[in-house]
Amino acid sequence: MSLIEALNWRYATKKMSGEKVSQDKVDQIVKAAHLAPTSSGLQPFKVIVVTNPELKEKIKAIAFGQEQITDSSHVLIFAAWENYTEENIRNVFVKGNLERGLPEDANGDYLNRLVATYTAKTPEENFHHAAKQAYIGFGVALAEAALLKVDATPMEGFDPAQLDELLGLREKGLRSTTLLPLGYRAESGDWLVNLKKVRTPMADFVIEMK
Amino acid sequence: MSLIEALNWRYATKKMSGEKVSQDKVDQIVKAAHLAPTSSGLQPFKVIVVTNPELKEKIKAIAFGQEQITDSSHVLIFAAWENYTEENIRNVFVKGNLERGLPEDANGDYLNRLVATYTAKTPEENFHHAAKQAYIGFGVALAEAALLKVDATPMEGFDPAQLDELLGLREKGLRSTTLLPLGYRAESGDWLVNLKKVRTPMADFVIEMK
Repeated sequence: MSLIEALNWRYATKKMSGEKVSQDKVDQIVKAAHLAPTSSGLQPFKVIVVTNPELKEKIKAIAFGQEQITDSSHVLIFAAWENYTEENIRNVFVKGNLERGLPEDANGDYLNRLVATYTAKTPEENFHHAAKQAYIGFGVALAEAALLKVDATPMEGFDPAQLDELLGLREKGLRSTTLLPLGYRAESGDWLVNLKKVRTPMADFVIEMK
Repeated sequence: MSLIEALNWRYATKKMSGEKVSQDKVDQIVKAAHLAPTSSGLQPFKVIVVTNPELKEKIKAIAFGQEQITDSSHVLIFAAWENYTEENIRNVFVKGNLERGLPEDANGDYLNRLVATYTAKTPEENFHHAAKQAYIGFGVALAEAALLKVDATPMEGFDPAQLDELLGLREKGLRSTTLLPLGYRAESGDWLVNLKKVRTPMADFVIEMK
């Protein structure tokens, strides 16, 4: 199945069956997010994989009661760095240089500019930037799920501050951005599954400058 | 090739050969962005496809002189709505309902809540939100390019205000978010192509809550 076919097959599943997604498939979906590119390679986000039933109930309660959270097999939570700090930026480069067999300070000038740029910004600006990188990974993970014929529901409909509190994310320097319950569609109970997929007409979506 | 293989194959190409990407492949990459999910299905972004050589030179000049912009075959620019307005939100739903054969006001309550939520926020908050949706499409487009073995360089390194001015984006209610030059790697001139791909160790990237 091509990615275009997979994207046409997928939809924001409204009713899931409770059937379990295999660990191998979940691993591949997380791996896709892990391989996604990010600005300067900083990967300023993590993926939290929730399977605990009581925890899923608590998440549902702060996500407008959306049933997919408990009917899914795994809930992925994309959580971005709450800020860029000199320490976390330098750490990424030190580790990367080590793995590439380069001197620890191989990218000195570039790295100093990067640190200066981020540390001059407010935490809120930096969080928005980190969150955008998480959305790239979120898009790539969604694509991989569809290719594996795993259903998913991309969700922003939850209270991020309450979720951060529930999962202790701020203590980890993280803030939640999106949820991605993974599972299998229960077609008979899903009002969306048979509705036509609609998109902006392509002629309005693309602007060509030749 | 699986998506995981494609993501391992791709890298942020630093030197492109000038070889042209076929229109069919460019169309599939744009189509992938077009099919990407967005919050409430609003698709608050567009993709601008630049092939004009003079325009590419001008873009390069406000993007730290990055040569991939002129050595690429096509430059995709992901541009998000500068704000959510009642008019642009309602338009999406009216068209969608029409296409689905539903009454024009089929989602009345939901739509009214959506309009109330967005119009209560500042333009800057709304732009950040729209930009995040564009990043989902950006991630999916990157994935499709890699699957087609088209090289690409995801870029945030440009002056967005100057690019908006150059392309007249604000007059269209848009602001630029990211660039994606498409082309083919020129391996002999690329310092990055043979460096190992590095990522945060998986054990630090994933948090399991069982």
